[in-house]
Amino acid sequence: MEFHYPNGKKFVSTVQSQPISSHKEKERSSSHGKRGMTLEEDLNETNRFYLEKGKAVIHKKPTPIQIVNVDYPKRSAAVIKEAYFKQASTTDYNGVYNGYYIDFEAKETRNKNSFPLQNFHEHQLIHMEQIEKHKGIGFVIIRFSSTEEIYLLPYNAFKKYWDRMINGGRKSMTKDEIMQDGYPLTLGLQPRIDYLKIVDHLCTLSDEGTR
Amino acid sequence: MEFHYPNGKKFVSTVQSQPISSHKEKERSSSHGKRGMTLEEDLNETNRFYLEKGKAVIHKKPTPIQIVNVDYPKRSAAVIKEAYFKQASTTDYNGVYNGYYIDFEAKETRNKNSFPLQNFHEHQLIHMEQIEKHKGIGFVIIRFSSTEEIYLLPYNAFKKYWDRMINGGRKSMTKDEIMQDGYPLTLGLQPRIDYLKIVDHLCTLSDEGTR
Repeated sequence: MEFHYPNGKKFVSTVQSQPISSHKEKERSSSHGKRGMTLEEDLNETNRFYLEKGKAVIHKKPTPIQIVNVDYPKRSAAVIKEAYFKQASTTDYNGVYNGYYIDFEAKETRNKNSFPLQNFHEHQLIHMEQIEKHKGIGFVIIRFSSTEEIYLLPYNAFKKYWDRMINGGRKSMTKDEIMQDGYPLTLGLQPRIDYLKIVDHLCTLSDEGTR
Repeated sequence: MEFHYPNGKKFVSTVQSQPISSHKEKERSSSHGKRGMTLEEDLNETNRFYLEKGKAVIHKKPTPIQIVNVDYPKRSAAVIKEAYFKQASTTDYNGVYNGYYIDFEAKETRNKNSFPLQNFHEHQLIHMEQIEKHKGIGFVIIRFSSTEEIYLLPYNAFKKYWDRMINGGRKSMTKDEIMQDGYPLTLGLQPRIDYLKIVDHLCTLSDEGTR
């Protein structure tokens, strides 16, 4: 069974913590599609690997939910009976790596030659802007799911294309632009998406104040 | 209406993001008890203040929920019909302050002279240990709700009492111990709980490697 947000996007469970009860764990298995793992699953695997190897502590935040009604059956766990998806006001992933604050959003598209900017929300941009001001390392990881190409785009490059849209320009980044300003990430086994390699580079640029 | 976790603890909404739909927002007002604001509300207010003033970007993470069943009514937002509370595997608050990664858990007790350690979970301690290893700043903020006394206890001090319990010692910290190892936080107007003052001090100690 798949869940979808109101905008049609698939809801993928954030299995980063154990359920209090052992109730049906449908989601854990449901999100493995036929076409391999989603970007989110690959990143969760990667973060788990980083954590186990003591490389970094980076987690996906739980999906924000507005709870309206809860039932308290006797002798079993509380059941949420009515709740709604909320729009996140921050990015999905954050954590610490070698003393640096890391913060990013991950999105994928089925488009082949461009990445739609509507996948991101304005408040996520505002959030990333604030992260940069406070000397954190902010970026986006984007995947072209049809070709399984993945890129890391530092916030400042990403912002350039966002601003272009705000000023009336195109509502997407072309793949050429992404290849020019971003860093390709190859899919591996362990970790699946070794993005810290690129983060190392961004940290160095940040220290030099050239970012 | 109040929500309670299976362990009897009150569920307080994490109103850090806008709901996608404008469905009944019962929680927002429900959590204002007669006895003033909860520690969580005070900290959310404080973090909002820090964000507005450009001092820090620190957010409470959403409550982790295991979603089992979702309805998609026509022309309105998706409704979660069955879901369960999950136990968080990390602490509740994190973010960035002047380039430092900040990570903490906040808890209150009605006890007068001691703070029960069962308010925390082992995996939260493991998480904070990892944070420290990666040069983040980890701590707990605890409140004695009957006297409205608030203390910030750095992770290393907190860990001492946790280890004592693990080794068969008492299952709580006495208020004297907290006063000795922690830093008092006075309740203000704006911000409500100015914990960054103490974090400044912890960052200095961290830089000196004396923490």
